[in-house]
Amino acid sequence: MSSKIRLGILGGGGDSLIGVLHRVASAMYDQYQIVGGVFNPIWKENIGFVENIGLPTNRVYKDFDTLIEEELKLPETKRMQVVSILTPNFLHFPMAKKLLENGFNVICEKPMTTSYEEAKILENTLQKAGTIFAVTYTYTGYPMVRQMREMIANGVIGKVQKIDSQYYQGWINPIIHDKEKRANIWRLNPEKGGISCCIGDIGTHAFDMIEYITQLKVNRVLADLNYVYSDNKMDVDGTVLIRCSNNAKGVIRTSQIATGEENSFTVQIYGEKAGLKWEQENPNYLYLLEDGKPLRVLKPGHPYNSELSLDGTKLPPGHPEGIFDSMGNIYKGIAKAIKKEPYNQGEFPTITDGVRGMNFIERVVESHQNGNVWINLDE
Amino acid sequence: MSSKIRLGILGGGGDSLIGVLHRVASAMYDQYQIVGGVFNPIWKENIGFVENIGLPTNRVYKDFDTLIEEELKLPETKRMQVVSILTPNFLHFPMAKKLLENGFNVICEKPMTTSYEEAKILENTLQKAGTIFAVTYTYTGYPMVRQMREMIANGVIGKVQKIDSQYYQGWINPIIHDKEKRANIWRLNPEKGGISCCIGDIGTHAFDMIEYITQLKVNRVLADLNYVYSDNKMDVDGTVLIRCSNNAKGVIRTSQIATGEENSFTVQIYGEKAGLKWEQENPNYLYLLEDGKPLRVLKPGHPYNSELSLDGTKLPPGHPEGIFDSMGNIYKGIAKAIKKEPYNQGEFPTITDGVRGMNFIERVVESHQNGNVWINLDE
Amino acid sequence: MSSKIRLGILGGGGDSLIGVLHRVASAMYDQYQIVGGVFNPIWKENIGFVENIGLPTNRVYKDFDTLIEEELKLPETKRMQVVSILTPNFLHFPMAKKLLENGFNVICEKPMTTSYEEAKILENTLQKAGTIFAVTYTYTGYPMVRQMREMIANGVIGKVQKIDSQYYQGWINPIIHDKEKRANIWRLNPEKGGISCCIGDIGTHAFDMIEYITQLKVNRVLADLNYVYSDNKMDVDGTVLIRCSNNAKGVIRTSQIATGEENSFTVQIYGEKAGLKWEQENPNYLYLLEDGKPLRVLKPGHPYNSELSLDGTKLPPGHPEGIFDSMGNIYKGIAKAIKKEPYNQGEFPTITDGVRGMNFIERVVESHQNGNVWINLDE
Amino acid sequence: MSSKIRLGILGGGGDSLIGVLHRVASAMYDQYQIVGGVFNPIWKENIGFVENIGLPTNRVYKDFDTLIEEELKLPETKRMQVVSILTPNFLHFPMAKKLLENGFNVICEKPMTTSYEEAKILENTLQKAGTIFAVTYTYTGYPMVRQMREMIANGVIGKVQKIDSQYYQGWINPIIHDKEKRANIWRLNPEKGGISCCIGDIGTHAFDMIEYITQLKVNRVLADLNYVYSDNKMDVDGTVLIRCSNNAKGVIRTSQIATGEENSFTVQIYGEKAGLKWEQENPNYLYLLEDGKPLRVLKPGHPYNSELSLDGTKLPPGHPEGIFDSMGNIYKGIAKAIKKEPYNQGEFPTITDGVRGMNFIERVVESHQNGNVWINLDE
Repeated sequence: MSSKIRLGILGGGGDSLIGVLHRVASAMYDQYQIVGGVFNPIWKENIGFVENIGLPTNRVYKDFDTLIEEELKLPETKRMQVVSILTPNFLHFPMAKKLLENGFNVICEKPMTTSYEEAKILENTLQKAGTIFAVTYTYTGYPMVRQMREMIANGVIGKVQKIDSQYYQGWINPIIHDKEKRANIWRLNPEKGGISCCIGDIGTHAFDMIEYITQLKVNRVLADLNYVYSDNKMDVDGTVLIRCSNNAKGVIRTSQIATGEENSFTVQIYGEKAGLKWEQENPNYLYLLEDGKPLRVLKPGHPYNSELSLDGTKLPPGHPEGIFDSMGNIYKGIAKAIKKEPYNQGEFPTITDGVRGMNFIERVVESHQNGNVWINLDE
Repeated sequence: MSSKIRLGILGGGGDSLIGVLHRVASAMYDQYQIVGGVFNPIWKENIGFVENIGLPTNRVYKDFDTLIEEELKLPETKRMQVVSILTPNFLHFPMAKKLLENGFNVICEKPMTTSYEEAKILENTLQKAGTIFAVTYTYTGYPMVRQMREMIANGVIGKVQKIDSQYYQGWINPIIHDKEKRANIWRLNPEKGGISCCIGDIGTHAFDMIEYITQLKVNRVLADLNYVYSDNKMDVDGTVLIRCSNNAKGVIRTSQIATGEENSFTVQIYGEKAGLKWEQENPNYLYLLEDGKPLRVLKPGHPYNSELSLDGTKLPPGHPEGIFDSMGNIYKGIAKAIKKEPYNQGEFPTITDGVRGMNFIERVVESHQNGNVWINLDE
Repeated sequence: MSSKIRLGILGGGGDSLIGVLHRVASAMYDQYQIVGGVFNPIWKENIGFVENIGLPTNRVYKDFDTLIEEELKLPETKRMQVVSILTPNFLHFPMAKKLLENGFNVICEKPMTTSYEEAKILENTLQKAGTIFAVTYTYTGYPMVRQMREMIANGVIGKVQKIDSQYYQGWINPIIHDKEKRANIWRLNPEKGGISCCIGDIGTHAFDMIEYITQLKVNRVLADLNYVYSDNKMDVDGTVLIRCSNNAKGVIRTSQIATGEENSFTVQIYGEKAGLKWEQENPNYLYLLEDGKPLRVLKPGHPYNSELSLDGTKLPPGHPEGIFDSMGNIYKGIAKAIKKEPYNQGEFPTITDGVRGMNFIERVVESHQNGNVWINLDE
Repeated sequence: MSSKIRLGILGGGGDSLIGVLHRVASAMYDQYQIVGGVFNPIWKENIGFVENIGLPTNRVYKDFDTLIEEELKLPETKRMQVVSILTPNFLHFPMAKKLLENGFNVICEKPMTTSYEEAKILENTLQKAGTIFAVTYTYTGYPMVRQMREMIANGVIGKVQKIDSQYYQGWINPIIHDKEKRANIWRLNPEKGGISCCIGDIGTHAFDMIEYITQLKVNRVLADLNYVYSDNKMDVDGTVLIRCSNNAKGVIRTSQIATGEENSFTVQIYGEKAGLKWEQENPNYLYLLEDGKPLRVLKPGHPYNSELSLDGTKLPPGHPEGIFDSMGNIYKGIAKAIKKEPYNQGEFPTITDGVRGMNFIERVVESHQNGNVWINLDE
């Protein structure tokens, strides 16, 4: 019998991209075995999908509540040890809450909840449960992102004095200018998508990345969002001025109408001693800038990288790893936590990241609606 | 006898970098002959410099007033036709004003004046004089910048919906953190440098570039400047939210404490149909992004470029031209204007650019000082 | 019970990088289940490894012959359907041969054998066996490599007229200049590494890539190898002039003493109508060059790509996939072949690639040893 | 009166690109004054051109012999001090020879002559004349090319062990496949273009660059040229295996049928300690590779560069200079030599470069015609 961690999955069936991402990620370090789940609310598709991906069907459940019920009947040595939530956003909170209340470890896609209030409740629930809870901000698993965090922690760039992060996509451009299309896409429907589209979906990645890399807190925001049309109810673009806990200033720039952009997520962090730059679309290059010195380009897998970074590279330098590998690293970290092995705090994002992300979204929208004014985030 | 345009120069002696830039630029298209000027206020250095660069010394004058006086004595066919002002900023206004009042064409370095008020006066003076007046926003002379302007004018990217320009340098970083150094550098001394360092010096380039490329007006600004230390009186970093005449939103990001950056001036303009990206440090590449199509990279000298762009390229594709060539193109355009030949409005920046630049600086500082609020620019 | 393809593995235990690569690749599309194998010749490490990666241990065998024997006892519905050979090179041939003779499908790491003669024998064995045989030239699985092949097949670049492929690494540099180190590394020991180091290990990748992309045959070679020291018995660098079946000329450039290079494998193919360029270290960018037109940069996942290319991309554009994903695509193609589903010939390299690769290695060495003369490859 | 060096020019009139390049280059450091020349063999165009570029016409001569005659009548203090030869290639030799015999300093475009024999004669003539003679291999004037030379001289990369230079263009592609066009272009007419097109025009640049940077001699070549069609008499593509004086091996790759390439001239030099890479189309980036260290990117103008490199940069880092600036640096070096000021041997290419270049062309063609065999160059 396999000694792998028993993983259950909620959602992610059919052609779901997030489903592939999590399945592959879970396989990357030989740590997990998918034992069952609820992949689709329609039974026929649920079971069909599982047959299609060649998994045993005995622990595919008809719905989430049944999963909980049946799994609890199993002895602990057989029960799912961790459950990944890949469902539509509004289900994250109730599912996560019930899983925690029943003692499961949880891996939750972002956004963690649909409101800051829910997020705080979940934080509380987790405190009581004492299990492992991870939020999959995928991009923090890249080896060179981890390397940035460690370099900054080790003082390589000195005190952070300037922060700039861009997350530009263009995919809403062909939709936004068509009245019918923009009225009908769920992403622009506040009832389905929450209070923010662009900030909620990608702005939070930039926010989390900044806090992950610098280990500073963003504590004030002033936002200018763009809805483009008056009949459009959700932001598709936004620039957010930020202030950090050490008084560093910065800016988060996000857009889904940056025509032709794919997934152009970048960070630039400048300190008193040096600067660091990184781009998600070319994730294996980390640029180190210093006054009067040649630019240095760090790449994964070299011994000059930190342990945290090296732990996330599987092949020698020059063999490009990508986003699946980044998510794989997050799953690897979670596995260590579940197995109660020692791990570095930077190995996976936690509920704190999820809570702060929700706080960020709400305060940004508030800032915009109040006329582009400064709003404080909670500490 | 040479039939070139007779050019006089004020300032730019000794090791002045701006001096080299203007001299070389003026020579690039065989249009100008430097006939004299005042290169340095100290006579010995003035005349020594001219001997050093191998020019005739007979029209090197002891000071600006003498230049005016003596040149006016010469017949029009011998008199300087245009004078380039490369002196410290506070001298731009009085020199430009007197030159215009005496019928000279003027090429003025930026910032054109030290205040918006002076700029408006100069605009008025020019109107009466009816001569040619150019402000050397050097970067607008690059062939691919010109190409962006023409492509946008021709509707290639559709209605502009998102603007982002970055101008990041790191040169103040080694100065700002040393109390003595920051107290003593003229650039951070309001008496010498005007009301703004970072916005005044490089923010204006970004502002002018946006208006040059899009032919839109920036009509509102909300700025967050950074002085880093409370004893420092001038901004060394600033982010400016902007709104344009067509309601497009955007951001101008500037810094002189982006440690390790050299002269990282970039523009990203996204329209309803396509996007354009350009970087000053790699000026021969223009990126055209369209939904669902391969990225296209345009380079100078190809027949697919506009006439305005091609007019600014001297060699076949693959022979990189640089910043001297960019300034050379501006001088070439000014030569056409002086010789009353037809020219494209995009060939050189005029007093309008200078006036708007000063308006921008003052409103940005006002926005910051009033607590990061929206301020309108004059039309 | 899982309906996945039952995969056995030979070698790849311990910290083996190739082991990770194949395990992850096999998991990427939910097609395979690793059911057993011989991961290490030492039993304790063999079984320890399997426990470590959390697989069932019941079909871990003490050696290769036992594996064959025991698996054959199982009913066909339980028996391994395909076996991956990841052992040291000299074992590829005998293992592959016996597997084929016993009716197994085989996935074999490259180089397929240690001599051209063995390769021809294996080809013959396979013909009798009629099973599936794949050689894992990993790099041909990249989506943009597949796209090159399809574009050339569809005439996008016209008749191929110029071929250039580089494969530069630097890893032998720290070894080659130390007499003791170069005497003791197995890669430079002809008894263990075969007749060629650099050409055998990486030159064959370049050769296979050229034939894969262009669907031409390389039919003549003239090689200049470099051994650097007279006591060194194996090439660590070599340039090979080539002629193709359509008379196109080209060059394959390989080195393991290109100091500081990681895995710089590039191809440039120029046709009468256009050119294509690609780099392994940045595998998600394909450059299309045409006379007098802007350079175009194609990226994976866009509908403008061919079906073959799109079949190898799992996420939307802008989510970088890497070398694991490339190998995953090859495994995906093999799965289709095993399941007798329709597939494109470009989905995985076959014994023909393996045979030709061995022919190439031997003729290149012969060319060099005979004084850098032209040698024909077999058709 | 100007104290600049009095420069005469032969050829380069009309729309000549090489004419612009030399005129601008001569102006860049305030060192030269163009006093006259013969810009076109047709008098009307000759004088018209000079009027057009605004130069005095009194020393524009009807032909080369008249120029010599008339200039010799002038006192030495007024006579042209140096003459630039920008005429068609076959005129380089007779003009240069006569100029030297009459005591002039000479700047000669490349190829210096049409045969190695002529080149040797010219070398002899120069020895007697004792004047300054420069051959304008334009690309050696780039600051980062100079920096490579100095770094190698200072042992930064250790003993050179691997050399690779590419010079790929695509401009002949639209011509070569059209029977009429290829028959009529002068570049492919041996009577007008000499014995080689591709090697002669661009291969020599690569050859000279290698010898310039490494200060090694290329002493053997084995070439494979490509004429594409049997009725085409001149090479349009060629790969040349080389061996250097220190036994380093390498390859020079050139093409004019690399469809879509502009002027893709690159060098890669690998030594025992590090590697260096540079690309002409992005001339302000120099890549330094070391085993196990981050890649370093050097840029012009920084104090970490050598004196020779810094002498060729006019503006602070981040202000891109280009090919005009490169040629300007060569003219600057020649000015020092003419003025008998101290200068570095690397500041401009001399007759030795010209002679070796002709030797290279002839031996490469010989190697190809003799069946791709090794041929020695003279020492």
